[in-house]
Amino acid sequence: MIIQGFSFSAVEAAIKKPGRKDLALIYSEVPAVAAAVFTTSTVKAAPVLVSSEHIASGFAQALIVNSGNANACTGEQGMKVALETVHSVASALGIDSTAVQVCSTGVIGVQMPVERVQAAIPALVNGLTDGTLDDIAQAIMTTDTFPKMEVISCQVNGVQYSVAGIAKGAGMIMPNMATMLSFIITDAAVEPAFLKQTFRSAVDNSFNAITVDGDTSTNDTCLILANGMAGNSLITDGTEEGNSFAIILNNVLLSLAKQIVKDGEGATKFIEIKVSGAKNDLDAKRAAMAIANSSLVKTAFFGQDANWGRIFAAVGYSGAEVDQSLLSLSFDDVCMARNGIFAGEDAEARGTEVLKQKDITVTVDLGIGIGAATVYTSDLTHEYVSINADYRS
Amino acid sequence: MIIQGFSFSAVEAAIKKPGRKDLALIYSEVPAVAAAVFTTSTVKAAPVLVSSEHIASGFAQALIVNSGNANACTGEQGMKVALETVHSVASALGIDSTAVQVCSTGVIGVQMPVERVQAAIPALVNGLTDGTLDDIAQAIMTTDTFPKMEVISCQVNGVQYSVAGIAKGAGMIMPNMATMLSFIITDAAVEPAFLKQTFRSAVDNSFNAITVDGDTSTNDTCLILANGMAGNSLITDGTEEGNSFAIILNNVLLSLAKQIVKDGEGATKFIEIKVSGAKNDLDAKRAAMAIANSSLVKTAFFGQDANWGRIFAAVGYSGAEVDQSLLSLSFDDVCMARNGIFAGEDAEARGTEVLKQKDITVTVDLGIGIGAATVYTSDLTHEYVSINADYRS
Repeated sequence: MIIQGFSFSAVEAAIKKPGRKDLALIYSEVPAVAAAVFTTSTVKAAPVLVSSEHIASGFAQALIVNSGNANACTGEQGMKVALETVHSVASALGIDSTAVQVCSTGVIGVQMPVERVQAAIPALVNGLTDGTLDDIAQAIMTTDTFPKMEVISCQVNGVQYSVAGIAKGAGMIMPNMATMLSFIITDAAVEPAFLKQTFRSAVDNSFNAITVDGDTSTNDTCLILANGMAGNSLITDGTEEGNSFAIILNNVLLSLAKQIVKDGEGATKFIEIKVSGAKNDLDAKRAAMAIANSSLVKTAFFGQDANWGRIFAAVGYSGAEVDQSLLSLSFDDVCMARNGIFAGEDAEARGTEVLKQKDITVTVDLGIGIGAATVYTSDLTHEYVSINADYRS
Repeated sequence: MIIQGFSFSAVEAAIKKPGRKDLALIYSEVPAVAAAVFTTSTVKAAPVLVSSEHIASGFAQALIVNSGNANACTGEQGMKVALETVHSVASALGIDSTAVQVCSTGVIGVQMPVERVQAAIPALVNGLTDGTLDDIAQAIMTTDTFPKMEVISCQVNGVQYSVAGIAKGAGMIMPNMATMLSFIITDAAVEPAFLKQTFRSAVDNSFNAITVDGDTSTNDTCLILANGMAGNSLITDGTEEGNSFAIILNNVLLSLAKQIVKDGEGATKFIEIKVSGAKNDLDAKRAAMAIANSSLVKTAFFGQDANWGRIFAAVGYSGAEVDQSLLSLSFDDVCMARNGIFAGEDAEARGTEVLKQKDITVTVDLGIGIGAATVYTSDLTHEYVSINADYRS
């Protein structure tokens, strides 16, 4: 896979513990058109504060990212570390500081070992000659059990460009506007305003439609860099090329978002929740998210227990407009309930069979209007509790 | 304990499985002034629909309650069963149907075995001669591990009256306006409008301030009956007697609410979360509930891991107005963080000691205003997952 003009590097900086690559760099030969979506939390990590200021220029040329420490709830010292890191990278690369994005993920409330980060930067920059995007995907993992990557290529008027993305995230996942860490790079030339708009919409349909545990992180960042080095003619809104680009971007982000759910901490199931017949799309998303975040629903899936009543209970408290006598619910193609009541003994046995699968689609129709939404979630398991009971140790 | 004029009965009706008392009756010799708060869910169980209509009269004389089946998501058949049950009880007691309240708790979406309920009613009514309130507290248990009861007595101008309450609930606990099942009886004579108002306020400070798993039930009901048989002069608003009654009622409800949290499914910890310094009380409650409902916070408590950053992260997405540089946090009297950052290595060791306790107070100050709220919750454990993965089996 070649995304022209981008190079990659990852090194061991022993930020949390030695023996794994935890500091990574993505660099574009030329300044890239850039857009980003950050956490909506009011408790924002230092790198989020720095990066959101830098992105205002609409351009970026480098991204430095570490795992093992979130640099969140670290006050002025945390801001100092984030800024010094950015300056060191900018100076080593000979670019402007504002062209550098910085991201962190890991434990909250612990100061970053700034000397170790600084000491690693020369090797990090030198490593750009032979690193790969996969190295970055590996280096940003925390409780992730596999690296998350997606690449799609496309021909536009005889010119090929690619959109590649990586992501990390397994817990503290309930994006609200933005999500965990995800970096998208493309060598396509894309008109800046169109890039921003398609990117936001793709984030809404992907990262903002997943939840593992209902917790929104202090560090959520999703960043896209488009450096134009594929040599295509500029992709703009309202054109066939623009539509293709939007579809590709959507697919890359949705693939990464689903990978995050599949790697949800302790997850044994991947559950797609489709709500239709809502008063409007917002109501549909409310209902779908209430189901996806219900501990009782999630434990029932883990137990392969076709306890559909808990799903209706979640819809009931979701805030969506509901007429309980119009509700229907299916597990895959097995109708479990219609007109608000159980579909019959046969459904129980067949529904239980569906729940033995690894991938399950839950369809809930509210029977009121035409609003619809789809969200993705995982089950709640013993392993989730184990992972999070001693995350810091 | 004597609450004058009330009698009690509980029998085995084999509603879910045989061998335990699962149908109970509370009866007042005379019509009692009554008030109730029901679930705010739009998916309401049949007995909630029936009882909320009956309570409009402001009076009640009997309550029939079953465990093992929620009679929720049961459609017209469910309504028929609830109404027939009420009629049979009314006719056996020789009172008006609208004076009967009906409640159910248990599995959702399964039709009630109406013949078994009907068959048990004669024995239930006959049993009123020798049952106790404790029998009722036992009969309404589902995943509860102990019955929940509180009684407080008081002298008013030489006349003694008592306020007694029972409750059930361990999972699907995140009241919103109302909660699980709780029945309060008193032989005090209380002015109806004052009873309603003090009752609502007591519910807000108790059942509406607890959460086990963030799920609001389809059956939540909290009911109070005041039959006046103590013979006291009428308790009214704005009097010393009224204030005493309000305090007693608050204490009974808060005791029951705390018992529910202590019996939270799989809970090993009781956590009191006090948020102060918020812009207003609503913001304080938002922040406190976000902390109390965070799976990451709850698993960290289970793991006795002083991961205070997760608490700030929850405050950050709570929707409350926050300035992260003003946040402070303590575990009991150990300050873990101030001005948004870690209080130091000493705090880590001392905070970890606090988390080894069974009862923990978390105090978060937002440093902005004078809004305050207290909520109560439990930790999230392996046992919670086990209980809920196979609740129906």
